[in-house]
Amino acid sequence: MIPNSPIRADRIAADIDALAAITEPDRPWTRRAFTPMFLEGRAWLEHAMQAAGAVSQIDHAGNLVGVVPGRNPALGSIMIGSHSDTVPDGGRFDGIAGVVVALEVARALRDQGVVLDHTLEVVDFLAEEVSIFGVSCIGSRGMSGTRPAEWLARTHDGVTLERAIAQVGGVPHALAQRDDIKAFLELHIEQGPVLQNEQLDVGVVTAIAGITRIEIIVEGRADHAGTTPMAARKDALTTAAWIALGVEELGKALASGETHFAATVGEFEMTPNAANVVPARVRMLIDARAELRDDMERFIDELARGVAAIADKTGVSVQAPRIVSDNQPTPCDPDLLIVLDAACESAGARHRRMASGAGHDTAWMARITKAAMIFVPCVDGRSHAPDEFATTEDIALGAQVLLDAVIALDKQLQETE
Amino acid sequence: MIPNSPIRADRIAADIDALAAITEPDRPWTRRAFTPMFLEGRAWLEHAMQAAGAVSQIDHAGNLVGVVPGRNPALGSIMIGSHSDTVPDGGRFDGIAGVVVALEVARALRDQGVVLDHTLEVVDFLAEEVSIFGVSCIGSRGMSGTRPAEWLARTHDGVTLERAIAQVGGVPHALAQRDDIKAFLELHIEQGPVLQNEQLDVGVVTAIAGITRIEIIVEGRADHAGTTPMAARKDALTTAAWIALGVEELGKALASGETHFAATVGEFEMTPNAANVVPARVRMLIDARAELRDDMERFIDELARGVAAIADKTGVSVQAPRIVSDNQPTPCDPDLLIVLDAACESAGARHRRMASGAGHDTAWMARITKAAMIFVPCVDGRSHAPDEFATTEDIALGAQVLLDAVIALDKQLQETE
Repeated sequence: MIPNSPIRADRIAADIDALAAITEPDRPWTRRAFTPMFLEGRAWLEHAMQAAGAVSQIDHAGNLVGVVPGRNPALGSIMIGSHSDTVPDGGRFDGIAGVVVALEVARALRDQGVVLDHTLEVVDFLAEEVSIFGVSCIGSRGMSGTRPAEWLARTHDGVTLERAIAQVGGVPHALAQRDDIKAFLELHIEQGPVLQNEQLDVGVVTAIAGITRIEIIVEGRADHAGTTPMAARKDALTTAAWIALGVEELGKALASGETHFAATVGEFEMTPNAANVVPARVRMLIDARAELRDDMERFIDELARGVAAIADKTGVSVQAPRIVSDNQPTPCDPDLLIVLDAACESAGARHRRMASGAGHDTAWMARITKAAMIFVPCVDGRSHAPDEFATTEDIALGAQVLLDAVIALDKQLQETE
Repeated sequence: MIPNSPIRADRIAADIDALAAITEPDRPWTRRAFTPMFLEGRAWLEHAMQAAGAVSQIDHAGNLVGVVPGRNPALGSIMIGSHSDTVPDGGRFDGIAGVVVALEVARALRDQGVVLDHTLEVVDFLAEEVSIFGVSCIGSRGMSGTRPAEWLARTHDGVTLERAIAQVGGVPHALAQRDDIKAFLELHIEQGPVLQNEQLDVGVVTAIAGITRIEIIVEGRADHAGTTPMAARKDALTTAAWIALGVEELGKALASGETHFAATVGEFEMTPNAANVVPARVRMLIDARAELRDDMERFIDELARGVAAIADKTGVSVQAPRIVSDNQPTPCDPDLLIVLDAACESAGARHRRMASGAGHDTAWMARITKAAMIFVPCVDGRSHAPDEFATTEDIALGAQVLLDAVIALDKQLQETE
């Protein structure tokens, strides 16, 4: 498929299948961070790292890292990888493709007898997806020294995140902030339809959208559904419905330009949720993504105004929107983008530059090193769903781009130092 | 309060307080049918029935009945009562007021040494509210011979309704259909604001609204919330939001006339309900109430048309609305209405006739006997909520109406036979 390449598509396919088999059996494909299934996947990965000639270890932040020492370890490391955890009922490629490709790059180098000057590290970041503890990118935030200390007290089923990190082999209170990583590269499926629609092989990611999560609580009044006149109600659901439609409308308006914007009400819980009671309360969680910070600030402002106007109109009380988390957009490293463009050319990959609407570990790694990422196409842009799919050919071509970029960087990073 | 009346408001208040104390401690007032708390309430009621001079027993349908034999038992029975179970986080008066007043009528007769010609029965119907088995009026449907046989196979936490009825002392497969009840009267709080707004004491209920429950399932598509362009989504939530608003609009239109109509989306569940996934599916349960069957049929028709139009507009698939349950409106017995109007006059209660938007056991008893009911005011129309409230004075005046009506009926029923 790729002439004279040491990248082997069959190994990539076998690895993805092997990880897919490690799923909660009744809801493929589910391997949430910190669960026994996740630890089983990690055990498989450790073995695969060792088979690729890497020394595997868990860092303080709970990341699984496979280290292939370079000829000149004093130069520091080039790190490649992604994450092996999934969302509930998620796919076989989100994160996994990046970990498997990183393994394959290590294997391809070993097969050709190439030892880099830099140390090569293959990483599986801990809990990139929103975890059972309600927070995401736990491992890459730990490695970049940006994991909030208060997170350790979060609990799930009576277990603290602190204890959960220890259980996967981390050292919870010690972050794992690194200053010896000279570049970080991640391959990921696009999780959107752009590459497929434009018949391209690789997206070189210019920036990772900022993600802001906003909670809205509508406070109606529980009344008897049969006897309370329609005009005398404080129905939390219908007020929440206006808000959900307002979020969609505002999202569409901000998405109508050139830059990426998306807004979603992903969580929606109604109480008391009883057939014969007028809904008393709705909690909504909005997920908003913006390539440009200005767009996000406009969204936050207009959302607050819109929600107040809806509450005025319906007469049902709505708490002011509360920002639960707020991360700025992250531009990728411009030097790495040039290296990646060149690697696409050398690998024969049709490519374009594009922003990422999804958050990625790369955004956190950019705090401590030159970081960038590439996308490979995924069928119909489907992701975070069981039918998420990427072809082995597309992933292998992405692996070739990553291999070429790593080899180029191993030289260039020395020249620029 | 009521001159020369044997009705004692202090006993009514004490009984309501005693039953209020029998609640799940952390969510007053909750005493759901079939729970240990419910059985505790029943034990208290049995004792109270015996203290009132009645013989208490559980019938085949699981109803608790206190029997005061008449002088001429061959005449059959006059039955009065309501239900002692509550909705979750419900009130202290819905159903309970009617059971307590029935007890008080029996006590008032006994205190005056009055023995009726008919046998007097005080009833606590089993599971009037939507129970943990998802169905309501289990006891009055059993007594009227209309409880569907297939209900017995319904389960909750692995226990069948069949077993649950046996556990409260019923004989599940045998219905308890009665042909010896000559009249049934129920007192209930209005659960709406009409009596309070019009400064009236009693509502004489002309009809009990039909209740139709309709399930709607919206089938969107789970997509990544960050990367899926706003225009390329199949968001189940926003389509469901249009439907919820459509239900409200249609309900308001049908409620704008003289007759009672109400429509509520009482249950709303979204999946996967994850922050970063576009909502894939929403299940809604609509509760619609109509005094006139024509209104309900218009609602059902227009809902189906409206839902199809919304699905067309948003491009998200919606299953055709499915009627889960459908009960016709029930007129109360015209002869009993005349007796109740007269009893209001004799008791000095300001009264009006009105329809009931809520379902009641009376609607089922109307299948096998002359049946009617009266409403007493409840503060601000609040019900199915912890702050549901009715004054002791209003309840006691209702008890006086019921007592006068029972005494009148004891004579009139003989004259008409």
